[in-house]
Amino acid sequence: MNKKPVNGMRDILPTEMEIRDYVIGLVKETYKAFGFTPMETPCVESIENLSGKQGGENEKLVFKIMKRGEKLKIENGKTENELADSGLRYDLTMPLARFYANHQAELPKPFKALQIGPVFRADRPQKGRFRQFYQCDIDILGDASNLCEIELILATTTLLRKIGFKGFEIRINDRRLLRAMAGYAGFPEDRVDEVFITLDKMDKIGIGGVREELVSSGFSEESADRYLALFSVCEGKTGTDAVLAVRDALKDALPEGVSENLSEIFRIVGAAKDCDFELVFDPTLVRGMGYYTGPIFEISVPEFGSSVGGGGRYDEMVGKFLGQNVPACGFSIGFERIISILVDQGYRVPGSKARTAILLEKNLSPEKTEEAFLRARELRKEGKQVLVTAMAKNRRFQKEQLAAEGYQEIIDIYERPLE
Amino acid sequence: MNKKPVNGMRDILPTEMEIRDYVIGLVKETYKAFGFTPMETPCVESIENLSGKQGGENEKLVFKIMKRGEKLKIENGKTENELADSGLRYDLTMPLARFYANHQAELPKPFKALQIGPVFRADRPQKGRFRQFYQCDIDILGDASNLCEIELILATTTLLRKIGFKGFEIRINDRRLLRAMAGYAGFPEDRVDEVFITLDKMDKIGIGGVREELVSSGFSEESADRYLALFSVCEGKTGTDAVLAVRDALKDALPEGVSENLSEIFRIVGAAKDCDFELVFDPTLVRGMGYYTGPIFEISVPEFGSSVGGGGRYDEMVGKFLGQNVPACGFSIGFERIISILVDQGYRVPGSKARTAILLEKNLSPEKTEEAFLRARELRKEGKQVLVTAMAKNRRFQKEQLAAEGYQEIIDIYERPLE
Repeated sequence: MNKKPVNGMRDILPTEMEIRDYVIGLVKETYKAFGFTPMETPCVESIENLSGKQGGENEKLVFKIMKRGEKLKIENGKTENELADSGLRYDLTMPLARFYANHQAELPKPFKALQIGPVFRADRPQKGRFRQFYQCDIDILGDASNLCEIELILATTTLLRKIGFKGFEIRINDRRLLRAMAGYAGFPEDRVDEVFITLDKMDKIGIGGVREELVSSGFSEESADRYLALFSVCEGKTGTDAVLAVRDALKDALPEGVSENLSEIFRIVGAAKDCDFELVFDPTLVRGMGYYTGPIFEISVPEFGSSVGGGGRYDEMVGKFLGQNVPACGFSIGFERIISILVDQGYRVPGSKARTAILLEKNLSPEKTEEAFLRARELRKEGKQVLVTAMAKNRRFQKEQLAAEGYQEIIDIYERPLE
Repeated sequence: MNKKPVNGMRDILPTEMEIRDYVIGLVKETYKAFGFTPMETPCVESIENLSGKQGGENEKLVFKIMKRGEKLKIENGKTENELADSGLRYDLTMPLARFYANHQAELPKPFKALQIGPVFRADRPQKGRFRQFYQCDIDILGDASNLCEIELILATTTLLRKIGFKGFEIRINDRRLLRAMAGYAGFPEDRVDEVFITLDKMDKIGIGGVREELVSSGFSEESADRYLALFSVCEGKTGTDAVLAVRDALKDALPEGVSENLSEIFRIVGAAKDCDFELVFDPTLVRGMGYYTGPIFEISVPEFGSSVGGGGRYDEMVGKFLGQNVPACGFSIGFERIISILVDQGYRVPGSKARTAILLEKNLSPEKTEEAFLRARELRKEGKQVLVTAMAKNRRFQKEQLAAEGYQEIIDIYERPLE
């Protein structure tokens, strides 16, 4: 039998687990204070739902589960989906949409959901990325107003502050604005997703690289230039001013209400935030998933480079299950990324309990053993974490090991007083 | 797309989730006080490990995951295991043994593990049993002494008391005693597992039924009678007295130390327990899994009929991974059973936070919206759970719904004071 975890997955050792548990505790405490309620769906979803085009590229990475018993016909199965009836979920958003469609009548309106759990992607294994990892999402369903966006931003930033992050930044954009910009530039409507994929590389290839890629994809130079000029109108401006500059440039191309909506989010978040962070308008922000329909976000902590979370509005996903759209907006923190930053920092969980080890001499009489367990019971009642175990032959090594685990107090129980 | 969960699995709604989270909190708090440390393995294990005969009947219920990409050769695959490379874990014990074998050098000795997580069995769907369910296990690895059994019993009973159970009972037996009894009765050694399967039905078919089944399985009447007579020697006796009565009847057939070991467990648990429960010697207790090698346990709460947990010593499982045995002993509480009992009782989580809903009139000005969020911020700082949301058209229904969710305080924010 094989003692290694399956390829691309990993075991979690006690030291990291303590940090994970602590962060999960903060997540629950903070998000509950904002009125979010925990819920859960199974790790397994039907193969139809996992191939329903809500997962974009992630649908190519599904771990598929074989049919069982009579339903599995190996001889006749020509394709993967004939042999499989289900698979492991690749995110928590599609299952939430299914959950909401299934239980709408039993849920409050709006429904503020908190989910924490493992998701699975058969990605190429690489450093720091695993095929099972936790996601931690908050979503508000059944409310079309920007109260959702505001609550999601306030809740997430409050959490990040409690975890100990400082000086982070939330970039915000709107899918409708992105579409309007592409339309204004004259890109054909059926190819805007291609435009967005190129735009999404701005960070890496710069504005020149974006222009080059657009043109080599067959878009006109005129459209590319008209498009890229739009990004310069908000240079030197921030927040609402930047939004208004783009709005003025776009004129009629922008649907009504989009810029006002963003401006309100800027204003209210600026007034009600309870920690120091920047909300930044970024007209180049795309976000990978195709299902977004309105405002989109991404959080970054400059000192750690990469993104630690993101989200957006997706008003059309529940409709795929229910036949009728339900407004929805969600935010996901990069749980594993945050944990790995904390682990790298040598993070210590605050307020750990005092630990006592009670060590029993070998072949102790029942009377003395009783005494040891009664002692443990008293200490546990006082709130201590108590280990009862046998003395090792190498006593010094045992004590060093216990000290490393945080056992500051060690009580030796001998049959007779030592002379 | 399909809004139902996959066949045999289920969604967990906020009301139940609150109870689950509360119980998981108690589990962690209690078991940590006994020196157990949380750890985690992936939900997915290799197909070899899931077919390694450590899971007994559960291995027939594995959800198998198909190979991916080039490794999947649908045309050539003749058997399930040629198409699958992994599957979902059916319990937490086999993965723990793998984990220990993999990380032994990094772990304290003894290693006291706490695991809480989902496991998966493609069982026939039936009322109250689901294909994904949580297990909650504590195990001690690397210690052969009965300090393990004692700690496991004390920790588990302390937890059950904290959850609110009373008058429960732990039945205890020892696999070596079971084997000795079978040997003494003259059953062939290579068929004792069959004897145990029949004995395990004692609850349902009674002593007469057991005799009948043994004889019809081809065992001699003499052996059957000699065997069943052993169970009557401890009638009317309890605890150590009952153990000693069986020991005296078995004479040399019982390996040295087995009855002394049980007697010590009775004595120390009796002295050190911190709540009222009975530890009962039950020579008919078998426990399903073949991997047990020493003491075995089962917990029942008479008022709820079925078992709410069990466990035992399994000194040979880590050896299947490591090539060298490591003593191990574990206890699993029936997490889902306990939750369903609490849900049926209409259990209320103690000490829930005060909840306030702030309702915003439609089309509120930014000034008033700001005011609402600032109010929410203050209340959250005071430790309250605060929901900020729009007023519904049907105000009365909204308030009733909020009251049902535990929002005792409702603050209405209007643009202008009501006249």
